[in-house]
Order: sequence, then structure tokens, then C-alpha cells
Amino acid sequence: MVLINGKSEQYLNITDRGLQYGDGLFETVHVNQGQPVFLHEHLHRLKQGCERLLIPCPALDVLSKEAIQLASPSTQAVLKIIVTRGSGGRGYRQPDCIMPTRILSLHPYPDYPAHFKQLGVVARFCQTRLGLNPSLAGIKHLNRLEQVLARAEWQDAGIQEGLMLDALDRVIEGTMSNLFYIKNQTLITAPLTFSGVAGIMRAQILRLATLHDLPVKQVYFSQEALLAADELFLTNSIIGIWPVKQLEQQVFPVGEATQKMMASLEQST
Amino acid sequence: MVLINGKSEQYLNITDRGLQYGDGLFETVHVNQGQPVFLHEHLHRLKQGCERLLIPCPALDVLSKEAIQLASPSTQAVLKIIVTRGSGGRGYRQPDCIMPTRILSLHPYPDYPAHFKQLGVVARFCQTRLGLNPSLAGIKHLNRLEQVLARAEWQDAGIQEGLMLDALDRVIEGTMSNLFYIKNQTLITAPLTFSGVAGIMRAQILRLATLHDLPVKQVYFSQEALLAADELFLTNSIIGIWPVKQLEQQVFPVGEATQKMMASLEQST
Repeated sequence: MVLINGKSEQYLNITDRGLQYGDGLFETVHVNQGQPVFLHEHLHRLKQGCERLLIPCPALDVLSKEAIQLASPSTQAVLKIIVTRGSGGRGYRQPDCIMPTRILSLHPYPDYPAHFKQLGVVARFCQTRLGLNPSLAGIKHLNRLEQVLARAEWQDAGIQEGLMLDALDRVIEGTMSNLFYIKNQTLITAPLTFSGVAGIMRAQILRLATLHDLPVKQVYFSQEALLAADELFLTNSIIGIWPVKQLEQQVFPVGEATQKMMASLEQST
Repeated sequence: MVLINGKSEQYLNITDRGLQYGDGLFETVHVNQGQPVFLHEHLHRLKQGCERLLIPCPALDVLSKEAIQLASPSTQAVLKIIVTRGSGGRGYRQPDCIMPTRILSLHPYPDYPAHFKQLGVVARFCQTRLGLNPSLAGIKHLNRLEQVLARAEWQDAGIQEGLMLDALDRVIEGTMSNLFYIKNQTLITAPLTFSGVAGIMRAQILRLATLHDLPVKQVYFSQEALLAADELFLTNSIIGIWPVKQLEQQVFPVGEATQKMMASLEQST
């Protein structure tokens, strides 16, 4: 089920700059009992991303209406919202009159085993690095070759996520998730000033941590620091929280702080 | 005029990873008197890019045949060849069976005034930086938001190109061109190890310089070094060589070395 600019379509003009240059953004929204979860937050981030990329954002009430229309028949699903700069001539220069394209599509909810949440997942480090670019950092834009190449590094179905370092060897996030660790009762995650995606679930975790008086630090850290963590978990809008039970050869408990965050997130949604 | 996988079509399935993630590459080919210029070189680079991105490259004889088919009716035109990883499910993981998409489209040749070539163009420095990423450097891939943002920095029609620095403040290239300068009878251009596009015309210039015993250095340089250049020029497959007559407040002659390279390129094509 796909809506392109409000119409039920499956095909897009190849002149669209989303295809030509990855010139756009997207949101991946969890649909639960017919409701797009954190829809307001997703649309707000989309709007902010559009502002940074100088794309006129489609009206949020229109996007919201279309999102709810697509989501409502589904018990569990994934709703993807793409906004591109629309069609334009050849060349990087933006068209004088930008008519953005909005594409909403519904996808099956991935059938992750329940033990991923209960017992944790296995992660690895990727070789592919995240480039440093303040003008794109934080935005969930359509330039995703780094993640595609990182995800192509492993085939082992026993490994659920790959962690990515930036060009300065700082650990930033997973290919499809944000990364948190706990050390000495402090919750730590990387800043997203030069690379990475400012996840909706990441923001929720930061909010909940503050609510529960768990000290938070947004600082850069090394692979070694991460491997010495007390607890470790991944977040995104679809998985919520996944504890990491193993990273490379190092094993981790599903600790108290992680469980507390999971329970708190469960209550808040 | 567009060929998608050999068929005359204008619309692409939105499941294509070219749109979803910028997961693909492209070539921009000059069509002169019905012939795609440097077609062999373009297809060779496309194949190399596919190998680096782990995309099975469409057969080059098929691409070549389709390129010639599209180009042949045109006196002057621009042929764009896009290859994507094809359709795939949601998520960065590549499909197990990759069926690449090839999209060939013909565009009008831009009506650049003749004096751009004879007297030179005006360039500026962009604020938007090129990220550092060895796994993507050199490839003409579809992740082009950096160039789009850089090109959006100026509206002044009197400025023809913006020069981009990398995250370490080294000058690398133009938004749509490679950059060369001459200092003390040596031709200098930036290495493309961490960012930039390895242009077909850039390779031709390097080849011709060697042929004419003009010493070549591929080294990083600063804005200051560039502003102190004896001569300066831009290259790409569509413009060939454009001398730069002015960069910011600094003016440059269309010097002897630049003229020699232009004459040599003229003869070789």
C-alpha cells in the first residue's frame, strides 16, 4: 500500500531528485493497533530535516492524515514516510519552484523473536565508517550508502546489528539503531554533531532517563570504553530497546538500568 | 527519452533502492554528433563503482548498446546512466538476489556561453563540506546531498561554480567539476582518497599532462595556496575545460598551460 502525493500509486517519475541525488528524507514509524506511534515526534523531525535541507515541508496535517489512513487497518506494521525535493532538471541546482514529493508506504512488521528483547542480541563492529559532515549530521536523509555498505559486511544471521565508528574512530551508532551504554550508573551515548541519526527513540530514552534521575552524558567514546561497559542497548522506533548480550567476544548482562528503561518505555507508549 | 532496463518508461517502482537509500551510481556522458564521448571510460568507471558498492554491474555491451541507441539522434546532448541495486525490502540489508536497475535518460545540452571556455568563469568557495569516507571516495554514487547543499549556497548567475573543501579544510573539487591549478609549471589536483569524484575528464587531463611533459602532483592544498595559483581550471565531461578567471576576489589569466591542455583535449576527442 503506497500513497504518492496522496494518490494510490506505486511508480515515481525518474526525474524525482530523491532518485537522482538521494535528495530527501525519511521516517520509519511503528504502527501499533492501527496507530502510528510517536507520529507527532516523527513529523516534527521530518519538518526540522526539511528546514536543514531547504526542502519546503509538506503540510504536517496532510502527512498526518495520510499516515493514519495507511496505518489504521494494521495491527502491527511499519510505515515509511519519504519526502523528496521533487522533480527537477539535471544538475545539483535546486529548481526555482520546489514541489516536494511525499511517499507513504506500509510494510510488514519484522518478525523479530521475543528473546531479542528479553535476552538481548549479538552485535559486531563494522569496518565501514561514518563520514564527518555537520551539515547532514542528525538528519534521517536518503543518502544511506554508508549504512548499506556496513550492513553488507556480515551475513551471519546470528548477528543482529553492526556498530559504526566515524572517520575519527569514535563509536557512534548501529547501522539501523542508536547506541547507549551504562557505566557506573551513567547512561552514555554519542553526540550527533558530525554524523549519525537523531533517532526518535533515542530522544525518548534521553527523556525517560532524566525522568528517572539516571545521569546522562552525550560524549564520544572508543571501542575499548564500550567493551568495558556495564550494560549496553540499541534503540530505534521499530525495535524499541534491544539489550546487547554480546559485542564481538564480550558478553553483557541485561542489567538493572536497561530493564528499568525498557519498563519505563513500555509504560510511556 | 528514458530507457528503464531497456524499455521506454518514465516511472520507477518506489521500492527501488536508488530512491530508498541513494543505493546506486551514475554517469553523465557528453553526446556529440550522435556519439557518447568517452563511453568506454564511463562504462569502465561505472563497473568499478559497482564493484566497490557490491552491485552486480549490468552487462557493459547492453549498456553501451542502449547508450548509443538513445544518443544517436542528437547533435549535442547529455546522456545520464544510472545503475541502482534494484528493488529490495525495507532495511539496509541487500536482497539475497540483486537485480540491478539501469536507467538511461537523454537531456538537452546546457547552453553555456562560448566565453566561459574562452575567457573563463567565476568561482566561489562553498561553506558545505565534503565528508571524509574512503569507502565512498572517488565513486560517482547517488548520495549527492553535499553537492545539492553546496550548490544551494548561491543564486548569483554570474558565479558558475562553487569549490568544496573537505572536513579538514583541504580544497577538493567543484560541486560538479574537478579542480586543477598550475603553480610554477606544475599541474596540481587533490587526491580523491577520502572524498570527491574521480572524473572521466580529470583522468584525461592527467593523461594529457603526462603526454605533454607537464609535471603533475596529486596533493592536498589550502584555499590560500589555490588563491596564489598561476592558472586555475575546472573539468567535467560536459564542460570539458573551463578556465577560472576569478575566484572570490582573486583574478587569474587564461594562461599558457591551460590553453595547451584545452588544445590538446580538443585534438584528442
